[in-house]
Amino acid sequence: MSANFSFQRQASCSHTQARAGVFVTPHGIVETPRFMPVGTLATVKTLTSAHLEEAEAQMVLANTYHLHLQPGEDIVAGAGGLHRFMNWKGPMLTDSGGFQVFSLSKIRTITEAGVTFRSPRDGRIINMTPELSIQIQNTLGADVIMAFDECPPYPAEREEVVRATDRTYRWLERCIKAHQRPQDQALFGIVQGGVFLDLRRAAAEKLATLDLPGYAIGGVSVGEPAEFIHQIVKATAPLLPEDKPRYLMGVGTYREMAIAIASGIDLFDCVIPTRLGRHGAVLVQGERWNLKNARFRRDYTQLDETCPCYTCQNFSRAYLSHLMRSGEVLGYTLLSLHNVTELIRFTKRIREAILSDRFTTEFAQWLDSPPPQAAEPC
Amino acid sequence: MSANFSFQRQASCSHTQARAGVFVTPHGIVETPRFMPVGTLATVKTLTSAHLEEAEAQMVLANTYHLHLQPGEDIVAGAGGLHRFMNWKGPMLTDSGGFQVFSLSKIRTITEAGVTFRSPRDGRIINMTPELSIQIQNTLGADVIMAFDECPPYPAEREEVVRATDRTYRWLERCIKAHQRPQDQALFGIVQGGVFLDLRRAAAEKLATLDLPGYAIGGVSVGEPAEFIHQIVKATAPLLPEDKPRYLMGVGTYREMAIAIASGIDLFDCVIPTRLGRHGAVLVQGERWNLKNARFRRDYTQLDETCPCYTCQNFSRAYLSHLMRSGEVLGYTLLSLHNVTELIRFTKRIREAILSDRFTTEFAQWLDSPPPQAAEPC
Ligand SMILES: [Zn+2]
Ligand SMILES: [Zn+2]
Repeated sequence: MSANFSFQRQASCSHTQARAGVFVTPHGIVETPRFMPVGTLATVKTLTSAHLEEAEAQMVLANTYHLHLQPGEDIVAGAGGLHRFMNWKGPMLTDSGGFQVFSLSKIRTITEAGVTFRSPRDGRIINMTPELSIQIQNTLGADVIMAFDECPPYPAEREEVVRATDRTYRWLERCIKAHQRPQDQALFGIVQGGVFLDLRRAAAEKLATLDLPGYAIGGVSVGEPAEFIHQIVKATAPLLPEDKPRYLMGVGTYREMAIAIASGIDLFDCVIPTRLGRHGAVLVQGERWNLKNARFRRDYTQLDETCPCYTCQNFSRAYLSHLMRSGEVLGYTLLSLHNVTELIRFTKRIREAILSDRFTTEFAQWLDSPPPQAAEPC
Repeated sequence: MSANFSFQRQASCSHTQARAGVFVTPHGIVETPRFMPVGTLATVKTLTSAHLEEAEAQMVLANTYHLHLQPGEDIVAGAGGLHRFMNWKGPMLTDSGGFQVFSLSKIRTITEAGVTFRSPRDGRIINMTPELSIQIQNTLGADVIMAFDECPPYPAEREEVVRATDRTYRWLERCIKAHQRPQDQALFGIVQGGVFLDLRRAAAEKLATLDLPGYAIGGVSVGEPAEFIHQIVKATAPLLPEDKPRYLMGVGTYREMAIAIASGIDLFDCVIPTRLGRHGAVLVQGERWNLKNARFRRDYTQLDETCPCYTCQNFSRAYLSHLMRSGEVLGYTLLSLHNVTELIRFTKRIREAILSDRFTTEFAQWLDSPPPQAAEPC
């Protein structure tokens, strides 16, 4: 690992694989476990960077695929990079675009070289390769960049997943080779393997030998039952190096984060808090409510009296319900601010519990809870 | 005027009717001349109340018609009134709903009793009368409430305008009678009369005898040429009591505010700063730019280096352009924040110029400028 990056474990749970740590990056630290808000187009939807600071966000994501299409990485670079472009002074991470290329592009051809697809923005043909993804990410300048991977759909035949997992490894080797800024950008590898635990284990072991600055588990939360995520994490995480951060991609629900932390995961991201906010849904002390519901029309209490966020400190459920019923943008902003704050606070509380070795008792509610109907795609 | 309200003139321009003053209300002062942002549904679109404080908003508007339809004034009252509902601690003003009833409701019957229309929200029949408008406004609890008036369209026959102006006066008498909270809510009368200056003068003289706590000029900015607004203001404002605040409804462009101030107007409102913001347009030092324009794609300078707002202090034109091209809500918020700040600053600068008697020299650019193609409807 470059001298600009390090991961120190601060505490371990006596009963699970959970750990509390500090991930050091050129733009500051990330205290783990930690939820990371997603700013796809260099904006965490509806929130200012001042709001993100208030929410105590540490690392913030942006997306290579989306930023390549609009405004283009050269425009971001012209501003002095992603941090300055979006005015976020803390650590940042860019997704490689792999997931989006495979899930959002309708017309595409996958070869060993890469993926050819038509830009949904202006129709031009784009050849996305491991080299181009890294080049774009080098240009964007996030602290953590992700390997370009092939993310098989769910369900998929074992043979298809084997092919994608092997290709993901070969693409990772090309990503490492293409990476021009290892001193100030940490390249994370991504474990694929679908729902086949033996493939996941083999991929994790192979990646572990590469001494990367961090590791991610990808290709989950793509429509499979939540229990599959936990089986995958349980099989994979212990095989990844203990002294490197572990990031479970696209997962951001209370229960799934708690259980994954118990398997040794450090970092999470999900668009769920802002997406829910735009639809009137709020996360309050482990529950999900829709504020458009009639019972909130005359509910003049704070949204969550235990929450320090601007929304909870200044507005009633009745007012927020009114904004959402009226389709007012301020409602999206205030609900997103609360939801992002809430998920960050949830991982902060877990971290504090691990530091005092009370994780399994304080979060038993989540660790022992029954699986949801279906995993929420992120 | 109730002891809770007063208007003190602090300075007068040597060359025009312009004046600087302080309007005292139960929730604080309004230093005039001042632009007032519009929060139709108890939200200045896309902005938090913290943003409004940063923009140095003093009096903020909300709308009786819209709030009656959603969430209903009883829900606002349940929160402790409009101020607490929307978390705005400063002075507030509610429009009577007259303008909206006449401009937004398709199916309506106007009689001496009032206006019957179908709610565009849920289809129910509403009989809006002067008494009901005042009752709703008493329930909402703004510092300033407006008389329920009949606003004739432009163009309209003289006979139709005579009828509407006479009826507006009779309705005003009913509003005064219906008003239950004169101690802590100031009822402003509205001068109508269309573009007929003799009708305007007669209406203003008649209203002036009523010793109301404030006066408004309404029925302008409804599609007529901008010069008509100035003729109306010039004919009307001098006939209104000198010791009462004068409010020109629905006007909020640089030139029109400057010229109206020269005729003795103190208060303005307009949805223009937030509406422009949602369409990518910004007001910068007297100009109007559209940030979606190609020339801003790589413009890394501040939006307005002289502006103290959060947007100008933290983001480049290139970033704002990217947000607007992407349809990102954060763009609407940041542009609205700047535009509201800019119009408030414009009226603050005029106020300072009046206080030092430099208004006509410092704002000659606006006072002598040619009329725009058409008045912007607000
Ligand atoms: Zn909150
Ligand atoms: Zn500004």
